[in-house]
Amino acid sequence: MKFNAINQKHINKLKQLCGENNVFTDQESVYKYSKDETEDLSFFPDLVIKPKNVREVSAVMKYCNEHLIPVTPRGGGTGLSGGALPVYGGVVLSTERLNSIIEIDERNLQATVEPGVITEVFMDAVSEKGLLYPVDPSSKGSCFIGGNMAHGSGGPRVVKYGTIREYVLNFEVVLPNGDIIWTGANTLKYASGYNLTQLLIGSEGTLAIITKIVLKLIPRPQHNILLMCAFPTNEDACAAVSAIFRAGVTPSALEFMERRGLEWVIEYDKLNFSVHVDAQAYLLVEVDGNDMDMLFADCEVINGVVEKHRCIEVLFADSSIQKEEFWKLRRVLPVSVKSNSIYKEEDTVVPRANLPQLVKGIKEIGKAYGFESVCYGHAGDGNLHINIIKASMTDEDWKNRLKDGIKEIFELTVKLGGTISGEHGIGLVQKDFMPIKYSEIHLNLMRGIKQVFDPNGILNPGKIF
Amino acid sequence: MKFNAINQKHINKLKQLCGENNVFTDQESVYKYSKDETEDLSFFPDLVIKPKNVREVSAVMKYCNEHLIPVTPRGGGTGLSGGALPVYGGVVLSTERLNSIIEIDERNLQATVEPGVITEVFMDAVSEKGLLYPVDPSSKGSCFIGGNMAHGSGGPRVVKYGTIREYVLNFEVVLPNGDIIWTGANTLKYASGYNLTQLLIGSEGTLAIITKIVLKLIPRPQHNILLMCAFPTNEDACAAVSAIFRAGVTPSALEFMERRGLEWVIEYDKLNFSVHVDAQAYLLVEVDGNDMDMLFADCEVINGVVEKHRCIEVLFADSSIQKEEFWKLRRVLPVSVKSNSIYKEEDTVVPRANLPQLVKGIKEIGKAYGFESVCYGHAGDGNLHINIIKASMTDEDWKNRLKDGIKEIFELTVKLGGTISGEHGIGLVQKDFMPIKYSEIHLNLMRGIKQVFDPNGILNPGKIF
Repeated sequence: MKFNAINQKHINKLKQLCGENNVFTDQESVYKYSKDETEDLSFFPDLVIKPKNVREVSAVMKYCNEHLIPVTPRGGGTGLSGGALPVYGGVVLSTERLNSIIEIDERNLQATVEPGVITEVFMDAVSEKGLLYPVDPSSKGSCFIGGNMAHGSGGPRVVKYGTIREYVLNFEVVLPNGDIIWTGANTLKYASGYNLTQLLIGSEGTLAIITKIVLKLIPRPQHNILLMCAFPTNEDACAAVSAIFRAGVTPSALEFMERRGLEWVIEYDKLNFSVHVDAQAYLLVEVDGNDMDMLFADCEVINGVVEKHRCIEVLFADSSIQKEEFWKLRRVLPVSVKSNSIYKEEDTVVPRANLPQLVKGIKEIGKAYGFESVCYGHAGDGNLHINIIKASMTDEDWKNRLKDGIKEIFELTVKLGGTISGEHGIGLVQKDFMPIKYSEIHLNLMRGIKQVFDPNGILNPGKIF
Repeated sequence: MKFNAINQKHINKLKQLCGENNVFTDQESVYKYSKDETEDLSFFPDLVIKPKNVREVSAVMKYCNEHLIPVTPRGGGTGLSGGALPVYGGVVLSTERLNSIIEIDERNLQATVEPGVITEVFMDAVSEKGLLYPVDPSSKGSCFIGGNMAHGSGGPRVVKYGTIREYVLNFEVVLPNGDIIWTGANTLKYASGYNLTQLLIGSEGTLAIITKIVLKLIPRPQHNILLMCAFPTNEDACAAVSAIFRAGVTPSALEFMERRGLEWVIEYDKLNFSVHVDAQAYLLVEVDGNDMDMLFADCEVINGVVEKHRCIEVLFADSSIQKEEFWKLRRVLPVSVKSNSIYKEEDTVVPRANLPQLVKGIKEIGKAYGFESVCYGHAGDGNLHINIIKASMTDEDWKNRLKDGIKEIFELTVKLGGTISGEHGIGLVQKDFMPIKYSEIHLNLMRGIKQVFDPNGILNPGKIF
């Protein structure tokens, strides 16, 4: 790709478009924008710009498109696939000032927000009105809702409430050439030509920049019950997962955690939880609804199922404080792994009944390549996050040999009917693995779509393919 | 578009590809394929072909693409927007022999089906296993599940269970040049590049031919309660709709029916139901779940809400026979309208709280243009089917003046935050109205995507744009 380097003339013009105080070029200010949460990767942009509204975003894009300057859009910077890294330098367009909750429409159970709103801030705002927006990634306290759209983010509650795709009704977006469109309508149904809203979800900021989002909300369930179930092996825990659904219960969360991960998070966050001496893995199971008797009945069913799968202990969170503690075990897990070791995270997903085979296979591949791993994730969706730990691996093996091991993990995942990312996206770090899942025919369709939206290839270049 | 006319050489070759007995060219055999359920439109294809498997579909497409022969894919022929009409002649590719339920995977709560399976046949098959596939258009007894995918079809249960998009995991498709790909993975989550599965849903057979579908299933709820609520005006009934959701109840169906429609269906199908003398409109409300007490509690809430909206009568279906009768009122309504008068059906959808304004506006536009209308539809989704009745309109007005009235209806729909089709698609008959909703910029993105998939423009030409 042939991009133009940023010069003083460009800088002056961009300052004109968004205001002197919203354009940064000094190393100290742009450092933060050289990284996201993906390993230790760092790519410095030449310039960071923080537009305040769609008009400014449009003007910036128009200018950059005309001058062949690459633009990398950025949300909260919590991505795990390097999607927000400006690998070709140029401009990082941060959405942090596009941060208004424009409307919570209680008549239609809809909300309109800007992309820079922190996911949890939005969830809290709708919760106050008795409503639920159920898409809550682990990073909900710092990620932006626009980034969630770009990555097709998930979270624990997808298993009951459906994916993020079910909650997005409409986007206002700026195309790479600066044109502004609404992609759909503020309606629950839509059969009016190709669905660009759905195409943009998960497109990782390579097709357009989202400037407004219209979301569907649902009534907030009034009660929930949370259980922690201990199992002697990973396979037992994973096998229990699909059995719970087959028994007719759809939990509102069903999370898998390996023993070592729990030990790390307990130590890291000084949590008050004792891992059962014989437990190799835990399932965190939540059911929710409006009637406690029904929820107790669900729990009895779950109890019966996990017992059949050699569960050795079921803990019941009997206060909101204890619920918060159980959830912390899961939510802080990613950070505690990161703090403990150099690691790489892979975001596999398979049909959920194939989870036991996946977990077993991962450990076998680890043995063959000499790496250890800590696994956890949204087991109810068949979505397993594999944290590969450097531990005693040599730098040489970590750098060169590991790649082949990861390739084998993805090959196994695809063989089991799965794919190479469930909710983190492809971004920069998974793109070399795309041919494991996709034929050249398939990749060319994706490339063709990119060309339609972004003929100059200036928007988030170097990602996905 | 420059297509080649079909000659004897083409016919012979196509017979070679799919077998002598699966290719038809005589007027009597192809007559059925000249029509769908859209008004009285009829376009004769030159040839109808009925491939049995993906290999045959691929061979047909490869041949037609190379010889620039237009191909119109066809499901059950129940479409209401003319999507299956071969407006350029050429080949109709019927999926009627691709009619296997390949697998119902109870471990993963998934199923794999071919596109020619009748929707209700599939629903019954999964129901026998205690599972639910909730997407049930009115035509479920004769429409094909592949056609449901192509049109992004809905039905009454979308309001609780989500759109068809939430249930499709993966497609096997044949591209216009004969290439075969799987568009996604058999997983509940998917963040691995552009989501072609979602792009193909609702693309009306213009991008690829679906040959296999992997679907998500859910546990079937054990109980339901069905109510018929009578209101003195359309506006009262419509206003009650959004109030029910605001009261915290999500019904599994919430259908609106105008008095005249009910009178017609009762007469047409000899149904045993008396319309309340003061009723102008009815809501059919269903709640479902696993606990009868909870459902009764929901019904009490609903009762309170409809009373506040001047409901004059609530009828409770107290047997499965009566439930079937109530549902018949809604399901047979489209057919009874069709048998009663020359009509045109428009498939508007708005944010549900705007329904009263939409219904009121339609009647006012009708008065101005001299047409009558019967409205019904999935009010819980804000999705209203408007049946415009010729009645006493002159042929001249019906042919020429009516178009301006329909344009006004769509303009109002878009002004109310809605769009010109919620679940029927654009097809042939709505494409002239696309500019009401979309700018040229937006339409060009759609055209660009079409060009990527189908550079020769042979697949279902003349539809959407």
